[in-house]
Order: sequence, then C-alpha cells, then structure tokens
Amino acid sequence: MTDAASEGRSLLGLEGMARPALEQLLARAAAWKRSLEGGTVKPVLEGRFVANMFFEDSTRTRSSFEMAAKLLGAEVLNWTARGSSTSKGETFLDTVRNVAALGVSAMVIRHTESGCAQLAARAVAVPVVNAGDGSHEHPSQGLLDAFTLLERWGRLDGRTVVICGDVLHSRVARSNLFALKALGARVVLCAPPTLMPPGFDALCDTCHALDEVVADVDAVMLLRVQLERMSEAFFPSAGEYARRFGLTAARAARMKPDALVLHPGPINRGVELSPEVADGPRSLVLQQVANGIPVRMAILERACA
Amino acid sequence: MTDAASEGRSLLGLEGMARPALEQLLARAAAWKRSLEGGTVKPVLEGRFVANMFFEDSTRTRSSFEMAAKLLGAEVLNWTARGSSTSKGETFLDTVRNVAALGVSAMVIRHTESGCAQLAARAVAVPVVNAGDGSHEHPSQGLLDAFTLLERWGRLDGRTVVICGDVLHSRVARSNLFALKALGARVVLCAPPTLMPPGFDALCDTCHALDEVVADVDAVMLLRVQLERMSEAFFPSAGEYARRFGLTAARAARMKPDALVLHPGPINRGVELSPEVADGPRSLVLQQVANGIPVRMAILERACA
Amino acid sequence: MTDAASEGRSLLGLEGMARPALEQLLARAAAWKRSLEGGTVKPVLEGRFVANMFFEDSTRTRSSFEMAAKLLGAEVLNWTARGSSTSKGETFLDTVRNVAALGVSAMVIRHTESGCAQLAARAVAVPVVNAGDGSHEHPSQGLLDAFTLLERWGRLDGRTVVICGDVLHSRVARSNLFALKALGARVVLCAPPTLMPPGFDALCDTCHALDEVVADVDAVMLLRVQLERMSEAFFPSAGEYARRFGLTAARAARMKPDALVLHPGPINRGVELSPEVADGPRSLVLQQVANGIPVRMAILERACA
Repeated sequence: MTDAASEGRSLLGLEGMARPALEQLLARAAAWKRSLEGGTVKPVLEGRFVANMFFEDSTRTRSSFEMAAKLLGAEVLNWTARGSSTSKGETFLDTVRNVAALGVSAMVIRHTESGCAQLAARAVAVPVVNAGDGSHEHPSQGLLDAFTLLERWGRLDGRTVVICGDVLHSRVARSNLFALKALGARVVLCAPPTLMPPGFDALCDTCHALDEVVADVDAVMLLRVQLERMSEAFFPSAGEYARRFGLTAARAARMKPDALVLHPGPINRGVELSPEVADGPRSLVLQQVANGIPVRMAILERACA
Repeated sequence: MTDAASEGRSLLGLEGMARPALEQLLARAAAWKRSLEGGTVKPVLEGRFVANMFFEDSTRTRSSFEMAAKLLGAEVLNWTARGSSTSKGETFLDTVRNVAALGVSAMVIRHTESGCAQLAARAVAVPVVNAGDGSHEHPSQGLLDAFTLLERWGRLDGRTVVICGDVLHSRVARSNLFALKALGARVVLCAPPTLMPPGFDALCDTCHALDEVVADVDAVMLLRVQLERMSEAFFPSAGEYARRFGLTAARAARMKPDALVLHPGPINRGVELSPEVADGPRSLVLQQVANGIPVRMAILERACA
Repeated sequence: MTDAASEGRSLLGLEGMARPALEQLLARAAAWKRSLEGGTVKPVLEGRFVANMFFEDSTRTRSSFEMAAKLLGAEVLNWTARGSSTSKGETFLDTVRNVAALGVSAMVIRHTESGCAQLAARAVAVPVVNAGDGSHEHPSQGLLDAFTLLERWGRLDGRTVVICGDVLHSRVARSNLFALKALGARVVLCAPPTLMPPGFDALCDTCHALDEVVADVDAVMLLRVQLERMSEAFFPSAGEYARRFGLTAARAARMKPDALVLHPGPINRGVELSPEVADGPRSLVLQQVANGIPVRMAILERACA
C-alpha cells in the first residue's frame, strides 16, 4: 500500500504516511485531549452520522470510536456482522455502498480480511477509517501508541521500541512499525522465525528472543497471542511461548529503570504479559485506552472535515 | 387486512390505503428530502424515544429507521431478538407491552411472522410501524419505491411496472402492488407458477417469464431470491432461476431506453440481477436506499404526531 | 455483603442499606417521575457517558437503564458479551478496567456470576450500578418494586408481602427482601424446601405452599421460574410447580379485595402466573416496568453526582 492509502480524508493505513502528516494528526489529538480535560470540547460534528461497521468482534476499538464520535456531537450507527444482512449473503461492498447511500459522513470499518478498508474506500465517496483489517493495518492503534509514547518522551528520536510476538499476523505491529519509524524511533521486531514476515529485516532490526534486547530498549510493546493459532502449530504451547517471548516479572526487572510497557489489548495474562507487569508502574496499557479517545476524535474530525 | 390496518398513526400495511393518504405521506417525504438537502431539518421529535425492535436480521431497514428517527431529534432504543428476553421464552406480546410501558412514542417492528405488527398494534396504545412482517407487508419499502419512481416520472398514471420473482413469499411485492396500483400504475406480477399467490390474477396482470414483458414495461422491480428456499424445491437451482426470471445484461438490453430497475436489497448478484445491470445507469438501487431516509422520517413524524 | 456495598455512589446491593438511604433514593425517583409527567426533565447528565455492560441477556433492564440515562441527557455505550472481546478470552476485570479508561461516568453491569458488580467496583474508580449479578442481588428491581408498592400504599409499615417461587436462585427475591423489610413491611418467603436458601428463616417468615398465605397478604410477588432448572430436578415439572406455587385465577380469587400482584418479568404465563391474573386488575406488572425509568434515573443521578 502506498501513500494513496492515506490520501484525502480516509485513513486506511500508516504505511507511507510522512512525518508531517502524522505529526499534524497527533497535534490535533493533543488539542482534543486538552479540550476533554478542560471540558471545552466543541461538537464540531453535530448533525453528522458516523457508521461504525464491525465485521469482527471488538470491545475497545468499537466503543472508543463511538465515544469519540459522540463527544464531537455526531450520531453513531452501530453495525455488526451478527444481526445484519451479511447473514443473508449480501456482499461486503454492497453493504458498504448501502450504508454510504444512507448519507453517513464517515465509515469506520473493521474486518477480518486484509485490504477490506481500501476496497471500501474505492467503492464509495464517503471517507473510510480502517479500524483494523485482517493482518494488514490498524492505523488508529498505531497512532494512539505513538501518541502515548510521545506524551511520555516528548519526541521519539533516539528511542528504541521492541515489538514482540506474532508479528506475522499482527496489524498492530505493522501500523506501529510504520508510525514509530516515521516519527524517528528505532524499531526492533522480535518474533519466532515462523512468525516473522519475510522481508521485514530490510525495514528494521529483528531478533528471535526477547532476552536479546529487553535490557536495552526504551519500551516493550507486546502483541496479543491469538491462542486459536496454537493449534496451527505456529508455536508449541502457551507455556513455551511465555518462556521465550512473554514479558515476565523477571524479564521486566532487567529493563532500563524508566523503560515502558505497551499492549494493545485484550491481554492474555500470563502468556505474553505477566499480571504483575500489566498492572505495574511501567505499564501504559490503560493510558493507551484513554488516549484512544482524543486520537480517534482527531481521525474523525479529519475524515468529516 | 383492511383500511383499519393503516388507520390512525400506526402503519401496518399499504393494502386498502387510499391514494390521498399515500400522496399525503409521500408529500411529507418530499418535504423532508428538501430539508435534508438544504440542511434545515427541524428536530420535531426531540425528547421522544423510538423503539427499533428487530426480531429478524436487517441492515438497511433498521439503520434507515434509526437514522430517520435521530435526524428528527428522537432517541432510539435498538432491540434485537438476539441478546434479549426472547431467549428466555418471553412471548412476543409481553415483550411489546413491556417496551410500550417504558414510555416510547413509537415502535418499529420487524418480525419473521406475518401479522405480528397488527398483533402488536392491538396490544398497545403506542403507534406501531411495520418494518416487515413475514411474507405479509413491508409498507415503508413500498412507499420508498413509489417515492423513487415518482421522483423520476412525476406521476405513475399510465406507467407499467413488473414485479418479478418469488411473489408468493414477498412482503415487498405485496406492499408495492398495493401502493403502485393505488397511485395509478399498472402492475404486472411475474413469477414461477409455484411462487405466484393464488387469486392475485384478479388484482393485476400476471405472467410466468420475464421475457414476455421486459420489452414493454417502464420499470422492472426484482425481488430477492431467498436462496434458502432453493432446498424446498420451489425452484430447481439458482442458474435455472436466473435464466427465466433474472434480469441479465442481455435481457436488460431489450428494455425501453428509459426503463428503470429497482431492487429492495440485499442483492444476490448473478441470480435475480446481474452485476452490470445492478451497477448500470438504469439502476435505482442506491437511490431507493437514500430515499428510505426521508420516507421513514415522514412515517415516524406521522406516528409520533 | 455489608453496608459497604452501597457506600458512595455505586449501587451494588440493598442488603444493609438503611431506611433513610432507601427513602432518599425513592424520593428522588418520585421527583423524576413528576418531571417525566410534566415534561420538565432537566438533562443533568449532559456530556456524560454511561456504559451499559450486559454479560447476560436482558430486554427490560438494559433498555430501562438506557432510556433513563438518555432522558437525563447522557450518552450510552451499549456493550454485550456477544460481539465483544470476551469472545477473545479477555478477563472480566480487564474489560471493566478498559471501559473505565475510556472515561465513562458510570458503569451499569449485569453478569451471570454473583459478586461481579462488587469485583468491578473494587477494580475501578468509576461508580458501578449492579443490574443483576447471578443469584445475588438486583437492587434496581428491588427499588422499583418498593417504589411501585409505596405509590399504591403510601407506606409499607404494617403490610405483608409474600415472595413466591425459586427464592434460592433469585436475586430479585433477595433485593426485595432487604428493601421491603427495611421500609417496614413484613416479608414472607414461599418456596419448595429445595429452593429456600438455608438460614433465611432467621430473616423472615417462610412457608412451602402459596395456599398457606395467599388469603392473608397485601401483595404476592411471583418470581420467574427458570424453566431450564426443571431438568436439574429442583422441581418435578411446570404443571406440578403451577399447582403448588403458581398464582392461578382460583388462587387469586382468595386474595384480599385490594391485594396486589407483582412479577419482575419475563413471565412464564401459565406457570408461575396465570394469564388472567397477569393481565387482571390486581397486576402491577406494567407499572413496575414504567416505574423502572424514574427509579433508574435516580440511581444514575446518584452515581454520576
């Protein structure tokens, strides 16, 4: 996917998005966060409708977009694959075209298949926000993670972030890789060899055990293990995974004093992240969730502008 | 069902509804469409609640009623059979009485069983809008289809519309038959003999192959094939159906130059309607969806008046 | 559970809640009811978000809280176990912490497991309203039942209410027992011996057949039979249950002339309550539903104060 992906008012992915464009969006998010804290949010989307189309289960992303839209004064049409005409065999694009024809101002789409957000954006004139498409991208997550780190560090230049886990299937890893690199950070991908996408060693440093890098990085971002993949033999067992790629309390103790921990949620406690670390002082997990609101306000503001 | 069905502020069906009543509703819809385009919609239902009760899956109808209600300033309570007390064995009428007791101003009801909207309307003092009940009626669809044709033609007198497909099980066919006839159009029903309701040849012309009429009509309205009925031996196969009753590109080429194509959605592409025709210049499919909003605003305005 | 359960702005249960606190809440509910009737409701929760988290199916409670919140001007985030990250294996408390981190002002939680509301309240700083947790408590139901009786009787002192059915598994029975007793009523529990919680005979009178008390009480509150428990051999059959514990028309004829009938819904008609009685002049069933709105407005007002 090229620059075209994020052209205009749609937000399909962060790949190819230039630093100034990212910084502009993040500056708007920071402005919305100040408005939220000051109780001075202006309902700039009053009278507008945002369609929240989730073809895949979600708690935080769906609720976060819904809340962001409503805080801006928009109405939200919630749409899930269950209970809809998808169960009658309607094609994805026909559904998208129909929701567009209702007159919504933006469509937030999550789908199990990579590329669906871009397919939708080509089919309709309404701006599309990708809320996660298969193992491709999850740009709002990438932006809120960058936002959360920037809030702590001021700038990302000179910082190193390791993204650890099932990188191959992770849209979170991809969106973060593109955003963090563009904003000046060094990114290291850490995954079992079977779960490292081919060719990514040309984009950034890679390694195959968290122990190799945990003591040297400024932040560890854990990816959610999709336990259902266990059966596909990508990795042998949850215990084995935790031993090599999980951020245990012992491993966290080797991190630099101020180094931070991120996780996009939902967490498999005791697999990729131990409970002590998830709930400990390094953890930014709940700040990530909270920052999702102003970041998505900025995204929707841009989409409906 | 008699005139009583559409008496007062409920809208249960279009059968027996007289031309002036239809024209009054459609005139209000046209007024709301102008307000939507001019950005001058008045929130006449502010402070009111509309219950959107869908005992059957739906995308466009549910979202369309929700958006229409919210554009008028109402709040919407969405209610689906999944995740509700229906799963605990509560009767339909007890559920309806309970939602009425909450204090809503109108109830929009879709149900798999014919007659459910009327049952509900008899059980509660709250106006009921039938959003489709079994194979009985789908009055808001009939109205929006008439609205869409009127928008093109100015008036329906002297026009011929063929409604083609599984007429027997189609609430869309029934509501359109009543509305289009009352508004002055000639209606032809086209269906396999097994899927033509007995006695309908007394109401209008009928035929058993689209080829017989396609060249002479002003509009072809395709009905959705419910593929699950294939197994019930109502018709032999999707391919066989498409050959005799589908609007293929070749068949569409025989239509009059300005003749139009309608479909209530969701479309089975390649079965009742070929993709070229669905997306071609004759197709009103997305205008039908867009017009659903002002038509339902008029219906809800009347219900809550 | 002790007084702590209802300390502060959360409402976890009615056990241990003192009469003045109950009366204060009920007085606010009465004030909201007058505002509703007069069309003078002030949107005191404008700009606030209430999360409606239902980990168990519900119609009336979910819709009632949603409507109460919206009448007060709040926005509602609806969340159900289906279609959420619970299907991805996220723990209950992680979900609760995440929704809290979004910035909601109150969380309304229903869950199949007893104690979940209190668990949640300990995990987050956001006030929690228990909308029913397993067989523990359903405080908003207890309050609206007390409210409905107070509306008829002015005061509960000197009145006798029998609560009849599967007391052992009933959160409604428990919340009503605590509320009605604290407000001065005499409560009798009537259940098969296998469905009477051990130790409850120390709290109030008990009996094992409705015939023993039906002629002497001022109100009969039926509990919903959970038909799925039939198979667990708690009682032999629906017919047998109806004969001993159901409020049949014949049994209702033995009640005092002004004695009242309550049921929390959904009703199994012909099992615990006969249709004639459910729809007859003694029945408060729909008034209970209607009163749920102002009672929940008072609960949410207190939570978000």
